[in-house]
Amino acid sequence: MTESFQLAVCQNNVVEKKAENIRRAEDMIREAAGMGARVVVLPEMFNCPYETRLFPDYAEPYPDGETVRMLSRVAADAGIVLVGGSIPEKDGDIVYNTCFTFGPRGELLGRHRKVHLFDVDLPNLRVRESSTLGPGNDVAVMDAGFVKLGVMICFDVRFPELARLLALGGIDVLVVPAAFNTITGPAHWDLNMRARAVDNQVYVAAASPARDENAGYVVYGHSMVVDPWGDTVARAGTGEEIIIGEIDPERIKEVRARLPLLAQMRTDLYELRKSGR
Amino acid sequence: MTESFQLAVCQNNVVEKKAENIRRAEDMIREAAGMGARVVVLPEMFNCPYETRLFPDYAEPYPDGETVRMLSRVAADAGIVLVGGSIPEKDGDIVYNTCFTFGPRGELLGRHRKVHLFDVDLPNLRVRESSTLGPGNDVAVMDAGFVKLGVMICFDVRFPELARLLALGGIDVLVVPAAFNTITGPAHWDLNMRARAVDNQVYVAAASPARDENAGYVVYGHSMVVDPWGDTVARAGTGEEIIIGEIDPERIKEVRARLPLLAQMRTDLYELRKSGR
Repeated sequence: MTESFQLAVCQNNVVEKKAENIRRAEDMIREAAGMGARVVVLPEMFNCPYETRLFPDYAEPYPDGETVRMLSRVAADAGIVLVGGSIPEKDGDIVYNTCFTFGPRGELLGRHRKVHLFDVDLPNLRVRESSTLGPGNDVAVMDAGFVKLGVMICFDVRFPELARLLALGGIDVLVVPAAFNTITGPAHWDLNMRARAVDNQVYVAAASPARDENAGYVVYGHSMVVDPWGDTVARAGTGEEIIIGEIDPERIKEVRARLPLLAQMRTDLYELRKSGR
Repeated sequence: MTESFQLAVCQNNVVEKKAENIRRAEDMIREAAGMGARVVVLPEMFNCPYETRLFPDYAEPYPDGETVRMLSRVAADAGIVLVGGSIPEKDGDIVYNTCFTFGPRGELLGRHRKVHLFDVDLPNLRVRESSTLGPGNDVAVMDAGFVKLGVMICFDVRFPELARLLALGGIDVLVVPAAFNTITGPAHWDLNMRARAVDNQVYVAAASPARDENAGYVVYGHSMVVDPWGDTVARAGTGEEIIIGEIDPERIKEVRARLPLLAQMRTDLYELRKSGR
């Protein structure tokens, strides 16, 4: 990465009607691009209420689904890198929680399928993503030319190994489409996002849907952009909102010169690597 | 770990005279034990001002050094587990930044030599621990019977791999004798300690010396005990102080039942292990 650019996060409100979610997302992406953003990020499940039972009904295949077609078209129209949050993706018999990223010519830059499924037992909130979703099995750095990006979806962010592998792969920005809730959000949202930024000395762009107090699953909101020192560059409230933050390669260099963490890892004592497949 | 106990952190003031530091630490350890603590923790370099050039002069060998003899004797007298922060340890020609931990019979439970040396270039603060210290080359879990402990010293805490290896080794409490400064402290002290606790679902006990505004290196203070959900159980100010927090095995179980992070790691996709030596 050699020059600064603006990154926008669209914190859209998610409703029951899929078509309306797609339309609203398109409007916000165009608005963000009009504000000067070269990279635009959407939240997790931006086209579908966050209810595991709904994922199969809202799922669509690539490249013929209506959501992915919109994403590709709008990325090309606006000439931006569009990290399309996540949607339920149908591939054969399996549904994934998938992030599609498109480049400025509408080309697919990368696809991240959520690797860690959200199977949890919070107070009064039991979720089993694995009841309707299959897990992703790959982690990859996306090279958009002027910036290298890595994607982790929501629960993925709780696993430091994944962020570290992406950082060692050379990313400048870790993008986290997510939908924390009103239990985990106040406890861990800022902490997780800031910790991944500071440990790996990268920017983190965390995208949440807007909060709907009447939804079955009430999301936290507070989309944010964090710099490599852990400072908050931009942070949303709980409603529908676009936030913009500057991504500055000099800031990454400055922080890594202060504390050369990646160079000081004791790889002679511990080793982290991709395994298996 | 099967039952709750009290853990104390002694945030002692460090002065130029080594003998006075040892005496003051002993007083505070006895006071903490008198308050009911079964585990007592001291800060990094509790017997020596944090100045790299001073470390060789203050260094002593094990088991004949005056500081380690005091630690062993007081641990036995008080019948406690004493995590002796760190001191400059001389072994042959090399000086290490070493944590000695003694059990209730005065026996050595473990020795952790700081693995990641603090070589940094902060604004108006350049530090090169490697100019006078050698690095440790081992990471180990200490089994004290009623609790399993892991130790990381200060800069070590910035490397998530080390905390993860200790967590996978079964620790209940991660002890971090440290001396953050007034630049890194406000930016990262709480963040680092809470992140290690939440990612690994263990308690974190972070011990800092008291702040001396006239010192060459001004430490942050704010020793703290964090629970596995990231909640702060106890937190000191900047002056000389003993804080006490309860370590509760049920809390660890509860948090791990809510979010079974350690069980949900995708070890089929990534692998972290000790390497080399």
